[in-house]
Amino acid sequence: MGGKSLVFFCVITIVWAASTVFAEDYTYETKYLDVPVSHFDFSKNATFKLRYLVNDTFWSRRKGPIFFYTGNEGDIELFARNTGFMWDIAAEFRAMLVFAEHRYYGKSMPFGDNSFSSPEYSGYLTSTEAMADFVDVIYQIWGETKVNSPVIAFGGSYGGMLSAWIRMKYPAVILGSLASSAPIWQFEGMTPCSTAFKIVTDVFSMADKECSATIRKAWSIIDKQGQSEDGRRLLSKSWNLCKELNNTKDVETFKAYINEACFDLAMINYPYPTNFLAPVPAWPVKAVCSYMNDSSVPDLELLDKLFRGISVYSNYTGQTKCLDVDLDDNTAGLSYSGWDIQSCTEMVMPMCADGVNDMFEPDEWNLQNYSDTCVNKYKLKPDPRIIEKLYGGKNINDHKNIIFSNGLLDPWSGGGVMKDISSSIFTVIIPESAHHLDLRAADPADPDSVKQARKHYKKIFRAWLEEHYRTSAQRTK
Amino acid sequence: MGGKSLVFFCVITIVWAASTVFAEDYTYETKYLDVPVSHFDFSKNATFKLRYLVNDTFWSRRKGPIFFYTGNEGDIELFARNTGFMWDIAAEFRAMLVFAEHRYYGKSMPFGDNSFSSPEYSGYLTSTEAMADFVDVIYQIWGETKVNSPVIAFGGSYGGMLSAWIRMKYPAVILGSLASSAPIWQFEGMTPCSTAFKIVTDVFSMADKECSATIRKAWSIIDKQGQSEDGRRLLSKSWNLCKELNNTKDVETFKAYINEACFDLAMINYPYPTNFLAPVPAWPVKAVCSYMNDSSVPDLELLDKLFRGISVYSNYTGQTKCLDVDLDDNTAGLSYSGWDIQSCTEMVMPMCADGVNDMFEPDEWNLQNYSDTCVNKYKLKPDPRIIEKLYGGKNINDHKNIIFSNGLLDPWSGGGVMKDISSSIFTVIIPESAHHLDLRAADPADPDSVKQARKHYKKIFRAWLEEHYRTSAQRTK
Repeated sequence: MGGKSLVFFCVITIVWAASTVFAEDYTYETKYLDVPVSHFDFSKNATFKLRYLVNDTFWSRRKGPIFFYTGNEGDIELFARNTGFMWDIAAEFRAMLVFAEHRYYGKSMPFGDNSFSSPEYSGYLTSTEAMADFVDVIYQIWGETKVNSPVIAFGGSYGGMLSAWIRMKYPAVILGSLASSAPIWQFEGMTPCSTAFKIVTDVFSMADKECSATIRKAWSIIDKQGQSEDGRRLLSKSWNLCKELNNTKDVETFKAYINEACFDLAMINYPYPTNFLAPVPAWPVKAVCSYMNDSSVPDLELLDKLFRGISVYSNYTGQTKCLDVDLDDNTAGLSYSGWDIQSCTEMVMPMCADGVNDMFEPDEWNLQNYSDTCVNKYKLKPDPRIIEKLYGGKNINDHKNIIFSNGLLDPWSGGGVMKDISSSIFTVIIPESAHHLDLRAADPADPDSVKQARKHYKKIFRAWLEEHYRTSAQRTK
Repeated sequence: MGGKSLVFFCVITIVWAASTVFAEDYTYETKYLDVPVSHFDFSKNATFKLRYLVNDTFWSRRKGPIFFYTGNEGDIELFARNTGFMWDIAAEFRAMLVFAEHRYYGKSMPFGDNSFSSPEYSGYLTSTEAMADFVDVIYQIWGETKVNSPVIAFGGSYGGMLSAWIRMKYPAVILGSLASSAPIWQFEGMTPCSTAFKIVTDVFSMADKECSATIRKAWSIIDKQGQSEDGRRLLSKSWNLCKELNNTKDVETFKAYINEACFDLAMINYPYPTNFLAPVPAWPVKAVCSYMNDSSVPDLELLDKLFRGISVYSNYTGQTKCLDVDLDDNTAGLSYSGWDIQSCTEMVMPMCADGVNDMFEPDEWNLQNYSDTCVNKYKLKPDPRIIEKLYGGKNINDHKNIIFSNGLLDPWSGGGVMKDISSSIFTVIIPESAHHLDLRAADPADPDSVKQARKHYKKIFRAWLEEHYRTSAQRTK
């Protein structure tokens, strides 16, 4: 699979873990609902416990909506704590807050420890099944409260894809959706595979033209060093690596780390400091690039500049003892298994680089290799067309009540909905936003474009709700 | 299960087999496509061969749509031969005709002879899976023809439900749908369980007020006769039954036959003679009721009138040697298994009668009994809410491009969409139509309301197609 298929996962876990500043104010009741392992057939009766979090402090039974977070690839508590926007506006809308965990993540394991052990168990990890779980949660709440409160779905990144798709598939259940940084078009035949890395490159170039040039030059220099034992020793020492580079395979891992660091930095290029595996400052790409201001320096000096820059990501506080470039070790207790498996079935998101229009090493998209790796690793064969078949691909004109928001600093915006589709599908472009900044809690450093976007969302939500209550009143007349 | 859950199935098989007059003109290529047994999970790789029929004689590659019949509970060839409307207008629209078989019917058996043997095999018989099969067939055709021709879905009865639902779930694949006599609201909490039998009663009353009164009186008279051996012998003889009524259980079967005959007669109350298990004349209910014009006659005379009336259904040609009232024997080589199983999972359509507002024996709807029977018979537990969850129940306002047509003579119209929903969901009421008469081939005896309806459909199809080609042209600019 290489690093790239994991990038998307990293995005989320990193970003969602990024800030727990306001987390103490966020309280919720943890609940579990028995849901079918398989919603669309009757071949077995198996169910499992799906976790969801509820806060109804602000909720008005009569006129209050449900703000429903469509959980994505991680522990739902991370999303609950890091989707400050929902908490920020709950009182104003008298909304109930619900955060539903995605099956196969966090505590919602359909087959316990066996959940990832073979397709027989892991095969039920699909977006379609996850959305059916969410619908069950909503019906459960409607049943308990004895009122079918209108539901607005929220989601970021893959969770944003789900919030868009669940509105498309269940418009009777979901009144409308805010799909933030949701690359629903990052699939075969919808978006060029080169787009995401081009955007990352642009973000670095905007910080400093020399910055992207430095990175583009670095790969071959690393390769040259990496060919000899002396060179590898030099790299290991100057970068303070935890494990010495022993061969060219280790060198590939080292480069993959830098590649992913660049991608992540673009995504979390927020206007205020955030924490994740390690803390980063405000506008981290700018901070990184401040060290890479001259790509014409000799090779070893260039690598040293790169090291200083990347250290903003890997060792901002100076507390990191050594640099661990092994991606699999780098997950802070989170398991890649879920997203890795989804990448081997539905979530086939082609990515490529050419080293000319972007600053990365040339890397073609090869479906056959990708597929072979999946079959070897999980006995799962990716289906690159299934997302288009299920969710309509580029032809989503007939849907309504979806807000697609994208930040221009976000590499995933390239696979997002960036143009106006219809009068009832809203496209919001946030020039100064990285990956779903709009969903985070309000911060004094937020750029105006994010503040405006949030105001706009609230206006749209109000219109949806007014329309809903008007229509319901007519229906019950 | 009793007779009632089977009624719906009978509807279809009977009606679709009703006329083969034009069948010789209808030619098609028979094809098979490998489709996944389970579209929504990756737990296994099993596929099976789904049958579909294609006629592209009239098709224009550049501007021709695909008219796609969403097969229902029976052999697809029956539907191809009996959906004359599609054939009638194919040349005019330069359309390709496709008739796709529903899994678990006809020749599309996922597990061969084992398909109905246990939930492990039968559990994949669901509407959702069937629609995913249809989408696969469309992608297959799009791939082969190298042009994504716009698709208009057609369907009657359960097939009409599928044609409506497939547009709701896959608007990017299905441009629009004609859902004829599709009782998508014949489910828990959407339509009173008494509606269908009330409509049957009205149809008989309209033919002759005394007709429904005769039938209403008959049940207790049959019961009275059925209590004694002499009475049962008398009934057996006067009705010329193939098997003598030996006990009160046999008497229940006898009554169930009459009950179902009445229901079927209302459904096939067409303006011209049709054939099915036996031929019936034009406007068969009128013919039946011509014998039941006085409900005040003595008991045995009333039963004789009923016998003469029902004979229009059971022995119109006079060729029937004896009357076989055993419903399970009455299927002309068709298997009930498929629909019987669907009735025990998703297709839980509550039906009841009170004997006051309708002419039938009082019969309450009892979900618990219904469910127990299913568990005993198939190890399957009906889920009475699943259709609402999946397809939105009464809240379908946000969908577009669906025509719901219903005949006022059709018992199933009570569970159909009979009121205007929105400007892009069309409701067409056909006063003089029984069960999906509009889908049948044009006939000189067709009432004006059916002719008008068909004209209206064509106008709507044209608007959909024009809009489609306009939008596609814009998109490719």
